[in-house]
Amino acid sequence: MTATSSLARALAHAQEHREAQLQGLFDFLRLPSISTQPAHRDDTRAAAVWLADALKAAGMENVAVAETPGHPLVVADWLHAGPGKPTVLVYGHYDVQPPDPLAEWNSAPFEPAIEGDRIVARGVADDKGQVAAHLYAVAAYLQAAGGLPVNVRFLIEGEEEIGGPNLEPFIAAHRERLAADVAFISDTAMLEDDQPAIIYGLRGLCYVLMDVQGPGRDLHSGAYGGAIDNPLNALAHIIAGLKDRDGRVQIPGFYDQVRPVTAEERALLARVPLDPARLLANTGAPALWGEPEFSLAERLGARPTLDVNGLTGGYTETGRKTVLPARAHAKLSMRLVPDQDPAEIAERFRAYVESLAPPTVTVKMNFQTSPPSISALDTPAMRAAAAACRDVFGRNPVFMREGGSIPVVAALQQQLGMESVLLGFAQPDSRIHSPNEHLRLPAFYQGIETIIRFYAYYGS
Amino acid sequence: MTATSSLARALAHAQEHREAQLQGLFDFLRLPSISTQPAHRDDTRAAAVWLADALKAAGMENVAVAETPGHPLVVADWLHAGPGKPTVLVYGHYDVQPPDPLAEWNSAPFEPAIEGDRIVARGVADDKGQVAAHLYAVAAYLQAAGGLPVNVRFLIEGEEEIGGPNLEPFIAAHRERLAADVAFISDTAMLEDDQPAIIYGLRGLCYVLMDVQGPGRDLHSGAYGGAIDNPLNALAHIIAGLKDRDGRVQIPGFYDQVRPVTAEERALLARVPLDPARLLANTGAPALWGEPEFSLAERLGARPTLDVNGLTGGYTETGRKTVLPARAHAKLSMRLVPDQDPAEIAERFRAYVESLAPPTVTVKMNFQTSPPSISALDTPAMRAAAAACRDVFGRNPVFMREGGSIPVVAALQQQLGMESVLLGFAQPDSRIHSPNEHLRLPAFYQGIETIIRFYAYYGS
Repeated sequence: MTATSSLARALAHAQEHREAQLQGLFDFLRLPSISTQPAHRDDTRAAAVWLADALKAAGMENVAVAETPGHPLVVADWLHAGPGKPTVLVYGHYDVQPPDPLAEWNSAPFEPAIEGDRIVARGVADDKGQVAAHLYAVAAYLQAAGGLPVNVRFLIEGEEEIGGPNLEPFIAAHRERLAADVAFISDTAMLEDDQPAIIYGLRGLCYVLMDVQGPGRDLHSGAYGGAIDNPLNALAHIIAGLKDRDGRVQIPGFYDQVRPVTAEERALLARVPLDPARLLANTGAPALWGEPEFSLAERLGARPTLDVNGLTGGYTETGRKTVLPARAHAKLSMRLVPDQDPAEIAERFRAYVESLAPPTVTVKMNFQTSPPSISALDTPAMRAAAAACRDVFGRNPVFMREGGSIPVVAALQQQLGMESVLLGFAQPDSRIHSPNEHLRLPAFYQGIETIIRFYAYYGS
Repeated sequence: MTATSSLARALAHAQEHREAQLQGLFDFLRLPSISTQPAHRDDTRAAAVWLADALKAAGMENVAVAETPGHPLVVADWLHAGPGKPTVLVYGHYDVQPPDPLAEWNSAPFEPAIEGDRIVARGVADDKGQVAAHLYAVAAYLQAAGGLPVNVRFLIEGEEEIGGPNLEPFIAAHRERLAADVAFISDTAMLEDDQPAIIYGLRGLCYVLMDVQGPGRDLHSGAYGGAIDNPLNALAHIIAGLKDRDGRVQIPGFYDQVRPVTAEERALLARVPLDPARLLANTGAPALWGEPEFSLAERLGARPTLDVNGLTGGYTETGRKTVLPARAHAKLSMRLVPDQDPAEIAERFRAYVESLAPPTVTVKMNFQTSPPSISALDTPAMRAAAAACRDVFGRNPVFMREGGSIPVVAALQQQLGMESVLLGFAQPDSRIHSPNEHLRLPAFYQGIETIIRFYAYYGS
């Protein structure tokens, strides 16, 4: 059997089994694998077990639910492509974000629904639908053609959404089991419905949990206001001091290690057809915003940022309460770019916040970090991915930097010297991390076909 | 029967019935009359009914639970003191603050407990324990002496904690039914355990509910951070702009109408034995704070303030979520002093916030206001109250301004031309509006005796 006929058989098999692929994805989506919430610990494990069973059924070998101190990883391999054939490591994650605010969902987040040409469910775009596309691509090859044109390993984690500490030690402890020529990661979005995008740069992350303590107990704001400082006012003062109103971070030295955008890269990014009107319509924001001296594409991927992700303190229920609260809490995160060092940024952040905090409060901070990364562009795997995109979508992919963080990319670079191909099939308005998260049904099937073609071209 | 023997009988009766007074108060405290929470509407009414029944049992006449569009008022009178005798209007409130945060209570907030010499329960100091002291003072006179030395009316409301809109129209519609020479209000604290305080100045209130809307939906902070403004960052910017770090409000014109503290009043306030070390110990705050050019007593009562009472937005549950939220909410309040006009301050606040808000967000504000007030000091009722304090506590009361707001005081001044005596029996660390609210048991009984003596001296 020739490589060409294997490809044709795999593509035909994938097309013929679309109904089963969708039902399988629905089963995967029904498991509320919310890694950050202890109450969903068993549900998270159930998603790992479901995936392991599905990989076994597809024909993958050495399938295991690998324990960690946190949520388990799912690993598998198929290594019979023959002499000289490259090995691909498929990375993804089976855990999902919390679905709140629940009231804003049009359907139950863990009961997948079809609305028009979209599948709606928590995790369908980030990242279960994309993991399922990889699952059904190897299934099609193994079942229709009896083998794959390349060796394939799977490494699917359950702590991506919580920046879990267990992935890197696992990679370090299993170098041979994970050895590969390239990683293939589908955890990103296309630029438009018919415009695939390969991400070559990812921002890192420095996430901060901040507690501001004022008085030892909640006080009556009328009785004590004016003589006892208010930790909510103090927190607002601290947060307001972190950025100017154009979005420039005010932490001393924050930008010192930012690798300047080269003229070539600026030209490459200028080719990305980002439409401000579409971005406004897609987000519903009243106006765009950000560092005026950088383009939209640069602000969205090449520049570091700082955002408050959550804030709470005092009386937050219905009605009015004149309380001067004892404490306030904030969750903040900074997106980092090469060559910012997350640990150094965390220390700079801490020192700056301590300088902003008045003596009337005490501030405690807890940091979690992951590094930024940039991938090589001119590799056989990148060329195979671009060719697969051309054949499925009829056009070349755009090469972009992306704002999100996928810590495994830096970990694979640093620990295994492995480059990654970041080619994903979500939509830019897939509402990941938001209510009514969705994935276009055509993109799910196009993803499966693109992955099948990638294997064929990379192995030929 | 002479006035003196009436007083002696009333005092003896009050002392002999302490156990029954405490059990009555406990029954009153068990009713969770949280006026701000719709789920407690029936509980709030139950507290009004309990109080009306107790006033009837005490011997008061024309007792009624008076309906309003919100929570009812309780009214009663006894008008048989005879020709030339003055009339006292007792004002208080039977509604209470929400008990949250529940986890910080040492006992259930609506199951009264005795800890040492303290009664612990939500509302025991603010204001049910003080209302009960008035109830048992008239009960002692009516039952032991067959009458009171003055005419007495009761007006006890159920919307004090929510600044309800129904009290003022009720006062305006029932001028004759409420006619009195002076109002007696016990809804404040003593300065120390054995140091009674008469409050002659109250701050007004301007309470603001603020909603800041950014994008139309929650976004992924990695995908959009840097190009879409974050309403939590914008809210922090707005709040930080409202005050400087010494507590001076930055709203243009905010202080224009503040009546300057006169040299005489400054001297009077300087005599208040406010101990900074005790204030720190009582509040647990790391440091005192506020406008450096004003004394502690002035900051706590004679100066306007601005505090954030509640703040929420984004992801506030356990764990990390990299969300760029659609909206943020704040509850803020300003304490106002004579001659600030709450409606004018609300407009100045709105205009200033709109000038601070960036074009990337829309801000909605809702205001609720009550005016500040100052009472006349040299009146027969003030002298009677001071004499009662001397006989019960062995020392003169201090005369203070207070930071809290009791809107009825201004309403009675403006609508009925009636002055108020503000003499309360709570402790400065009674934790009103906080977990573990308490009232000293001796202060409850001293309160009853002080009120009995006030009636005797005022009526003689």
